[in-house]
Amino acid sequence: ISKAATLKMEWRTVPQSAHSKNTVNPVRKIADACAVQPNPSKRTIRLHLGDPSVGGKLPPCPEAVQAMHESVDSHMFDGYGPAVGALAARQAIVDKYSTPEATFTADDVVLASGCSHSLQMAIEAVADAGDNILVPHPGFPLYSTLCRPHNIVDKAYKIDMLANEVRIDLTYLETMIDSRTRAIIINNPGNPTGGVFTKRHLEEILEVAYKHKLIIIADEIYGDLVYNGATFYPLASLTPKVPVITCDGIAKRWMVPGWRLGWIIIHDRFNVLSEIKKGIVALSQKIVGPCAIVQGALPKILRDTPESYFEYTRNVIETNANIVENILQDVPGLQVIKPQGAMYMMVGVEKSSYGDDVTFCQNLIKSESVFCLPGQAFSAPGFFRVVLTSAEEEMEIAAMRIRDFCIQTYQNRTDSEDSSDEGLDLSTIESD
Amino acid sequence: ISKAATLKMEWRTVPQSAHSKNTVNPVRKIADACAVQPNPSKRTIRLHLGDPSVGGKLPPCPEAVQAMHESVDSHMFDGYGPAVGALAARQAIVDKYSTPEATFTADDVVLASGCSHSLQMAIEAVADAGDNILVPHPGFPLYSTLCRPHNIVDKAYKIDMLANEVRIDLTYLETMIDSRTRAIIINNPGNPTGGVFTKRHLEEILEVAYKHKLIIIADEIYGDLVYNGATFYPLASLTPKVPVITCDGIAKRWMVPGWRLGWIIIHDRFNVLSEIKKGIVALSQKIVGPCAIVQGALPKILRDTPESYFEYTRNVIETNANIVENILQDVPGLQVIKPQGAMYMMVGVEKSSYGDDVTFCQNLIKSESVFCLPGQAFSAPGFFRVVLTSAEEEMEIAAMRIRDFCIQTYQNRTDSEDSSDEGLDLSTIESD
Ligand SMILES: Cc1ncc(COP(=O)(O)O)c(C=O)c1O
Ligand SMILES: Cc1ncc(COP(=O)(O)O)c(C=O)c1O
Repeated sequence: ISKAATLKMEWRTVPQSAHSKNTVNPVRKIADACAVQPNPSKRTIRLHLGDPSVGGKLPPCPEAVQAMHESVDSHMFDGYGPAVGALAARQAIVDKYSTPEATFTADDVVLASGCSHSLQMAIEAVADAGDNILVPHPGFPLYSTLCRPHNIVDKAYKIDMLANEVRIDLTYLETMIDSRTRAIIINNPGNPTGGVFTKRHLEEILEVAYKHKLIIIADEIYGDLVYNGATFYPLASLTPKVPVITCDGIAKRWMVPGWRLGWIIIHDRFNVLSEIKKGIVALSQKIVGPCAIVQGALPKILRDTPESYFEYTRNVIETNANIVENILQDVPGLQVIKPQGAMYMMVGVEKSSYGDDVTFCQNLIKSESVFCLPGQAFSAPGFFRVVLTSAEEEMEIAAMRIRDFCIQTYQNRTDSEDSSDEGLDLSTIESD
Repeated sequence: ISKAATLKMEWRTVPQSAHSKNTVNPVRKIADACAVQPNPSKRTIRLHLGDPSVGGKLPPCPEAVQAMHESVDSHMFDGYGPAVGALAARQAIVDKYSTPEATFTADDVVLASGCSHSLQMAIEAVADAGDNILVPHPGFPLYSTLCRPHNIVDKAYKIDMLANEVRIDLTYLETMIDSRTRAIIINNPGNPTGGVFTKRHLEEILEVAYKHKLIIIADEIYGDLVYNGATFYPLASLTPKVPVITCDGIAKRWMVPGWRLGWIIIHDRFNVLSEIKKGIVALSQKIVGPCAIVQGALPKILRDTPESYFEYTRNVIETNANIVENILQDVPGLQVIKPQGAMYMMVGVEKSSYGDDVTFCQNLIKSESVFCLPGQAFSAPGFFRVVLTSAEEEMEIAAMRIRDFCIQTYQNRTDSEDSSDEGLDLSTIESD
């Protein structure tokens, strides 16, 4: 028996912590399930990543790029800044987003390494093991990923995508509130729904929060990214009564998710959030702030990006949404949810015709080389999500391939008793 | 009674989580205690921040700056990369640091938002509430800051700075190991000690870890930054037997702590760390990796920085160390610890002459406008820490002011029975 073998026997595999073991991103699992081979005779089209920088149709604006070069060359941002972020960067957020309806100062702002990190700090500051936070289904899965390692219970409330206007089922939501509920997470405009809540509905949401004296964590990373006639209202601007912790960042409007800059705005009311603010400030010390170079660039980015840049983006997404909708709307067994915000379109798939959403997406890749994410990744089984940030022609080709695939599959299924199900057992991941 | 007042009465201050409440950075408290007014007639000299970019003597190298510009202009790093970091960046770490004694692949590397974040992921992946991790005293306080919110017990072992060579008291360390001990954190070269462990001593440390089958988290952020005759040995390179999780980054050798790029290298042995690796990978998904622009720059930074850049740094620090040592070595009631690594010098202060270290540092600011951090910030009461990265002339002036201050204080105290203690009650923070 060799020396190495003897040594090996002396050690046992070191277990990972429960904390890391409970850190699970469901998208990973589902993306793995979709790691099937595309059709080699068709060029691959990727509409599965919520990354607007992919495809080159929505590059960052020259002002932002210039701001980065200036920040690097200034050598003012090579060193540590305050863990909560550089004052100039926090002030720039005040200058851009503070309004008479929801006034805040640089003291109420904490910078983060992306909106993900904003959400992490907000969640970790408000809840402990055994507490619960209400999260949207369908919704961005990171909320649960961030809660569960701390044994914070993520209680799912329902968003109705099929209604005339996208709505939270507030009656049901209210039944979920108990003495251990610490916050409601509201994501508007919504990933993956593409929905934008009306002013009236936001006010209804605030009434519920007010009634139960619950704070809201508002994920507004897609704020202002609305079209098809919708208007975006920052949640904090609609309430003088409910404390709101807004999580935001430059990822999805400046189209630079890789730069990893987000922020928290603590919209306190009546000094109710003074302790939570201390908690968030303390948490920011763990990793000492986001990249200082990007912080240095932020004032110029927020100040100098022309309005036309955002108009262009909204236009691209709106046009793409309408192209895809037109092509898919009459396809048998599909149900297009018309989006009004963010950069996504949800499409329902009839299970009896196409199998579940994972099966559908796998077959779409195999047959058409078009990548979409199954709704299960977002607690929306029976749907698939189309990302709307590619070039028009690309969207059109993709939608036509999806249509052709559906028509053919639909035909085959009514023609025979055969199941198009590939025999994969996906029941383990269809947990919602 | 006004409407606002009525509303206020309806809400109670929302408590922060125990998690955020237990996130405490002791440096904050002590820095606050040192927020006294400097002497207006003397120019301020700041030797308290472990930030080599302060002062302008150690700017980043042109190659690193160029790499950042190229990364921005490439537009290849505007989008999300893998949460564990871009493959090219991880491979660049392999190319630079993998050796025949401690071979690893890109799969064993996870990028982080600074070495702080590396440490956070390593700690969170190995331990849960009730487990313990052995941390150095004196040492970098972040280890405890990261453990405590999770109720991971940070058990302090002792580093003897006064011995001929800096050493861990391994006999004492062994008594602290119990069934809940999950890892030993070894920081070499050391903050704040400026100490560099000898090869022999590192081997002794590894013997203890091996005997108890404990993994080591090696914080080597100051690796290679050694002088005055010392040699740096990466811990993993000295053992084929003990699994080592190395935490590192570009902050302290490339002098860009603000860029926030760190990494973890999982030096597994016999596949003992397979679960821990999964845990670290999972944890990296919480904030989706460090700034992609810096990741994009990393290959060029690691490849193209000339050896002369590091020689220059070592030279500056060694020269500064020797200047300060020469000026302070014969000052009554001071004890200079000769450093051999990192960028710090510890100086002991005789309590009977100068009061405790916080009092000493406060008085030094008031009288000489020289800022140093009290040792209490690093669990080294009775010492103060001098950062050695300023220009030579600055270091010389600072050391002379410290000397003059001490000689005068010393004189006054022997002349009278009066205490120079300012009457501040600092007992609450002298907890070590
Ligand atoms: C709703 C929502 N919130 C937050 C994020 C994370 O943003 P960031 O990249 O700034 O961490 C995303 C990213 O897709 C998102 O969809
Ligand atoms: C010993 C030690 N480890 C880690 C760090 C953190 O490094 P970073 O700035 O890369 O997070 C420091 C910073 O001072 C340090 O002294």
